[in-house]
Amino acid sequence: MTEQTLPSTGREWHLAARPQGWPVPEDFALVEAPVQAPAAGQILVRNEYLSVDPYMRGRMNDVKSYVPPFRLGAVMDGGAVGRVVASAAKGFAVGDAVLHGLGWREYATLDADKAIRVDDALPLQSYLGVLGMTGLTAYAGLLEVGGFQPGEAVFVSGAAGAVGSMVGQIAKLRGASLVVGSAGSDEKVRMLTEELGFDVAFNYRNGPVAEQLAKAAPEGIDVYFDNVGGEHLEAAIGALRLKGRAVLCGAIAQYNDTTPPVGPRNLALAIGKRLRLEGMLVGDHYALQPAFVAEVGGWMAEGRLVFEETVVEGFDRTVEAFLGLLRGANTGKMLVRVDG
Amino acid sequence: MTEQTLPSTGREWHLAARPQGWPVPEDFALVEAPVQAPAAGQILVRNEYLSVDPYMRGRMNDVKSYVPPFRLGAVMDGGAVGRVVASAAKGFAVGDAVLHGLGWREYATLDADKAIRVDDALPLQSYLGVLGMTGLTAYAGLLEVGGFQPGEAVFVSGAAGAVGSMVGQIAKLRGASLVVGSAGSDEKVRMLTEELGFDVAFNYRNGPVAEQLAKAAPEGIDVYFDNVGGEHLEAAIGALRLKGRAVLCGAIAQYNDTTPPVGPRNLALAIGKRLRLEGMLVGDHYALQPAFVAEVGGWMAEGRLVFEETVVEGFDRTVEAFLGLLRGANTGKMLVRVDG
Repeated sequence: MTEQTLPSTGREWHLAARPQGWPVPEDFALVEAPVQAPAAGQILVRNEYLSVDPYMRGRMNDVKSYVPPFRLGAVMDGGAVGRVVASAAKGFAVGDAVLHGLGWREYATLDADKAIRVDDALPLQSYLGVLGMTGLTAYAGLLEVGGFQPGEAVFVSGAAGAVGSMVGQIAKLRGASLVVGSAGSDEKVRMLTEELGFDVAFNYRNGPVAEQLAKAAPEGIDVYFDNVGGEHLEAAIGALRLKGRAVLCGAIAQYNDTTPPVGPRNLALAIGKRLRLEGMLVGDHYALQPAFVAEVGGWMAEGRLVFEETVVEGFDRTVEAFLGLLRGANTGKMLVRVDG
Repeated sequence: MTEQTLPSTGREWHLAARPQGWPVPEDFALVEAPVQAPAAGQILVRNEYLSVDPYMRGRMNDVKSYVPPFRLGAVMDGGAVGRVVASAAKGFAVGDAVLHGLGWREYATLDADKAIRVDDALPLQSYLGVLGMTGLTAYAGLLEVGGFQPGEAVFVSGAAGAVGSMVGQIAKLRGASLVVGSAGSDEKVRMLTEELGFDVAFNYRNGPVAEQLAKAAPEGIDVYFDNVGGEHLEAAIGALRLKGRAVLCGAIAQYNDTTPPVGPRNLALAIGKRLRLEGMLVGDHYALQPAFVAEVGGWMAEGRLVFEETVVEGFDRTVEAFLGLLRGANTGKMLVRVDG
């Protein structure tokens, strides 16, 4: 084990209460906890960036799901990147940059086989976004689940978000005939068309989604990438052409609902149009990782891909970052810089 | 052209008005029309059996769809079997049994290449059902769209209908671990388990579908074959297991609604469970026809497949048969015997 002066305690965010509807700061507790020295085969990591993601809201509920819920009174989890500060594991040295799943804490002690060493020639936080789960979700969802083909028209909701902004850009780079995005502010809408290369974008707060989508894509769409659910999904079902596909990736519009949302009333259109609606979790698509890194990494190197991020500075503001994400306060990937 | 004494007129059913909600007898008109002698390349067929099908209700509305609407004041269409009574086409002789698409009339004059000669060793009406579109819909929907695999659990709504009763039996014959069906009367429910080999069946009028389905399939289902839409689809989304599939084939529960139906409020479950919902029309699956006829014909020959039919006797009762179908008055395939 490589030795250096290590802190005896670090801060971590615990789940203090299960939210009813929208989470509030009181649902979380900032706790000072002992830092565990790494046992054989383990490493101790000082986290530099933490990811906050919409799926975390679902894990705060105590419901049976295919991702286990966060435990009450225990530390939250999530994607994180940082550097090894102590190692009792072969192949990991102090200073190595790693990606792992023990976020929401300053220091993480974990089995080395649960960490992935990453190349720090790129900004570390890109492994939480464009080259990480976010990017792979967009890539696999559009291409593998959505079966996107060059020349097709694509609509993305939550298009200014981390996943949505990647979906639209990948679609353009792969030869879409039309890319339409929706977002929740005029500023985001401007960013979509002026910086990210979307053909058309609209603010869903400015009028019914179905009407705005019909104007944006009067001939219809072939693929809908759904980050939102609700009214957006219904509008997309109406706009999808024969054999269109809807990729169900998120439903952030309804994560905090305490009553069941309204389902798409026009779902029977799927029969005549032979639509396919399919849910996805990125974990099913890790086999695509090499192709994804090669293609997206190439676009990054060529400067053809804009990666937006919103960085909240300071570990103590992690909850603020998460709550902001749920309200749509971010543009692109929402991150916390631990030392901000 | 082979000559024989031909009638100068025949009866046909016209669409007299577009129904608002449930069709009524006044929406149809029985008309006496001249019988057209076949031109070169044509045949004249005396129809023996007519098919009435749920999809016809959709075609009565004047809405843009991928199947054109019936024209007001013109004769209705639909599957029919009959015998050639005059032929001006090579390869078709008087007395030949044929399957074609000009139903809702006693006599049909049509291009011979629009007719399919059928083997009359089997009852002619089986080409409108078990060996026709009905059977192929069930076969292609379960196997090709639904991706059913031996050992999986299947739920079928409208299970006593023409398509539903085939789906359940094909699933059992192909090795399903569990086949559950729903129907709208206790008598139909009994028929499903006692005659058609369903493992469990329930009457959806006897209580919430979700509760009855949870009792029937406490461990969940892998494939849902939807003939009904509405509450059934929502219940099935709740019961589908990881990577489950819903085949959207019909939505008879809502064909006569004048207000939009309620969509499945739990559709966001499709994300975590990675469900696939896919609409189908049988016309996309004609390539499966040879495999279908071989396998289903084999089961028929071995007496392993029960084919239920409800035959309404008499051409003048065609509308009665169709309206009865929409109310669920049939068990299995609903047919009209022209000469009844």
